Order: sequence, then C-alpha cells, then structure tokens
Amino acid sequence: MSTADEPISPATAGTERTVHREAGELRGDGAEGGPEGGPETGRDAIIRAARRAFTLKPYAEVTMRGIAAAAGVSPSLIVKRFGTKEALFNTVVDFRPAAAELFDAPLPGLGRHLVLTMVDLRDRLRGDPLLRVVFSLGIEDERTLLRSRFREQVTDRLAAVLTGPDARLRAELVAGQLLGLGATLSLHRPDGATAHATADRLADLYAPGIQHLVDGG
Amino acid sequence: MSTADEPISPATAGTERTVHREAGELRGDGAEGGPEGGPETGRDAIIRAARRAFTLKPYAEVTMRGIAAAAGVSPSLIVKRFGTKEALFNTVVDFRPAAAELFDAPLPGLGRHLVLTMVDLRDRLRGDPLLRVVFSLGIEDERTLLRSRFREQVTDRLAAVLTGPDARLRAELVAGQLLGLGATLSLHRPDGATAHATADRLADLYAPGIQHLVDGG
Repeated sequence: MSTADEPISPATAGTERTVHREAGELRGDGAEGGPEGGPETGRDAIIRAARRAFTLKPYAEVTMRGIAAAAGVSPSLIVKRFGTKEALFNTVVDFRPAAAELFDAPLPGLGRHLVLTMVDLRDRLRGDPLLRVVFSLGIEDERTLLRSRFREQVTDRLAAVLTGPDARLRAELVAGQLLGLGATLSLHRPDGATAHATADRLADLYAPGIQHLVDGG
Repeated sequence: MSTADEPISPATAGTERTVHREAGELRGDGAEGGPEGGPETGRDAIIRAARRAFTLKPYAEVTMRGIAAAAGVSPSLIVKRFGTKEALFNTVVDFRPAAAELFDAPLPGLGRHLVLTMVDLRDRLRGDPLLRVVFSLGIEDERTLLRSRFREQVTDRLAAVLTGPDARLRAELVAGQLLGLGATLSLHRPDGATAHATADRLADLYAPGIQHLVDGG
C-alpha cells in the first residue's frame, strides 16, 4: 500500500484535490501550487489556511484576517476570491466528493468497496478524506459546523440508502468504522502492520464488520 | 445509554479519574476539585492543563511555563509536584488503565466486552479514554510521544494476546474500530441514533466486526 509519506494534518488531509476537481481545476501533476506560481498558489494557500483554521478552531473564532495572515495574502483578496466567511467554509469543508466515491457501490459489496476506496482516496489525497472531523472534537466547543457538515454529507447520506431496521444507527456505526480505519492507518504509520498490508488484505479483515452493519446487523 | 453531556475535549476526555485511581486518589464524588479546594484543585488543574497541552501541541513545544500559566499555578509548583516535563507527560498521558479494563476478557467474548467497556468507560470518565490520540493527528509534527504511547500501551498490548496470523495487523485494526466507535459516539451526540441506543444494542451491531478480527479475520 503506497500510503503517502506526509503527515496527516488539517493542512494536507482531505479534499484538496477533490475541491479542485469540483471546481474543474484538478491538476494532473498533483502539485500544490500551479506550475506558473502566482494566483493559483495564492488560492491553494488560502484553501489550506482556511481548512486548517476551520478544523482547529470553533467557527466563531475563525477570522478572515487570521486566514489571510496564515496564507500570506490580504483579507480583501480572500473576500474577492471566496466571498464571505460562510462561503469560504462551504468551499473548503466539503465531504461530498469523498462521500460520492465511498458510497458508489451496491449494498451487497459496499463493505469491501468502502475499505478499498478509503485506502485509494488516502493515497490520492495524501491524507484522509474524513478524519479532520475527529480532529475538531478536540475543540471544547463541540457544536462546530464541521461536525454538522459531516453528519449531513456522510452519515445522513449513508442512512438514506441503507434498508432494514435502525438504518440511522447502523449508518453512524459505519461512519465510525471509516473514521477508525483512517485513524489507525494514520496512527500506525509509517512502520505499522497496516502500512505494509495490501488494500485487499485490509478489506479481507476490515470489510466484514462494515458489511455486517450494511446488511442490517 | 447515559453518555455524558459534556463535550469531549482534551481537557475533559480521558483518564482523569483513572490517573487518580492509579495514584490511590480516586474521589467517589466525581468532582473535579477536592471538596476542600486548595492543593487538590491545583493538582487537577495542572493535570488538565498538561493533558490538553500534550494532546494539542508537539511534545517539544510544550513548556512547563505554559502549563503553569494555563493551570494558574507557578512553574515551580509543577516541578515540585510532578518533576520533569517527561515525568509530567508520563503521569497525564497513560492509556494503561483504560487498556487494562478494555482487554480484561477471554478472546472468544472480547469483541462484545470491548464495546460494552468503551461505553461504560466513556460514561464514567465523561469522555473517551483513547480518542485524544486522534486529536493529536491534527498536529503537523506527527511524531509525538502521545502516539508512541498509544501504540505501546494499546495496540502492542492487544497484539501480544491475539493468536493466529497477522496478530499485529489485526490488533491495529481493532484499535481502529475502538477509536472509530468513540469518534462516532462523540460526533453524533447529543441527538444521534448512537446516543439513544443501549450499550447492548451497540454491542449487537458493532462487536461482530471486532470479534471477526479477534478470531483471526
């Protein structure tokens, strides 16, 4: 498994490239800055700084000024590019692209698909697509928009497609297993057993528990 | 399930009372400060401030001076009570009490025991006994002692008792499932389906996946 070498952090984890893809801006080279430097680099720096701020601080404490300082740009440039703080939040904290890939399989094979897709997404994104929501639990104010967003875009979405009793409960527990898989893959890098296991072996071991929940428990 | 109402945070999550118990100081009333105020309150404030600092910052960036300021005591009082920074770290970041309870069951029933014990520990501790290690993944420097400690005290300990092939890999994945359970219980509070499910129902749904890994995958 070619788990990325970079540490998982709010700055690198997540939907960086999926955001670009959503915006039709995915670059094939995987570089953080555009080859030309300049405006694209500024945009990426703003996105990284904003994602980090929204992950590590309660929403109310995040300021455009602080993001601008961290990104090395002027506050007015952020407003010009992204609009309001809420609009910026909606741009950088978006679990939908990851959820779309994760849940894109028929229910009978969803458990295995989820494990394989998680491993693949982590490789492609050089970070975990979901785990930042757990970082946010370290903040004392637990009612951040980040968690609401996760519940809406991940848990609710899965609950809507599950059949049988306690669909919502089972969806929450599947979400937990996905977060747990990402957590243990990050935690036991680079020398852990999970870091050396193939995606197929991980799926053999981890998917049955997920599938049990998908099937109805 | 009587999940605690307090937000999970480094300040409240974790082994607060287990540390007290280890030190023979467990108070039955569950109060944070001693009824007499004074010295015991200072000790608790130091422990809380230290746990928060070691969870949210790389070890090298944690200073006794910073912990003292957060706890409202003098740096010399911390040194007098706890010794060096390393000694303080060892006191406040200790997964062993939780691991001792979690892994205290025969292998054939360990999956169910783990789920029930996690729910019970979270209720008693008013926080999650393991989850702070995931908060620490939000820090860019991923080589913190906190993660080493988790691997030694939780993952390695479980790997040592598992039998069959890939014990280490399976132990890492079980650790992931425990972290994922805690994450989803915290994330979907207070109005999520997991918050309203009984511990037995959670075990019915979530334990089979864990047991699958315990049994050998």
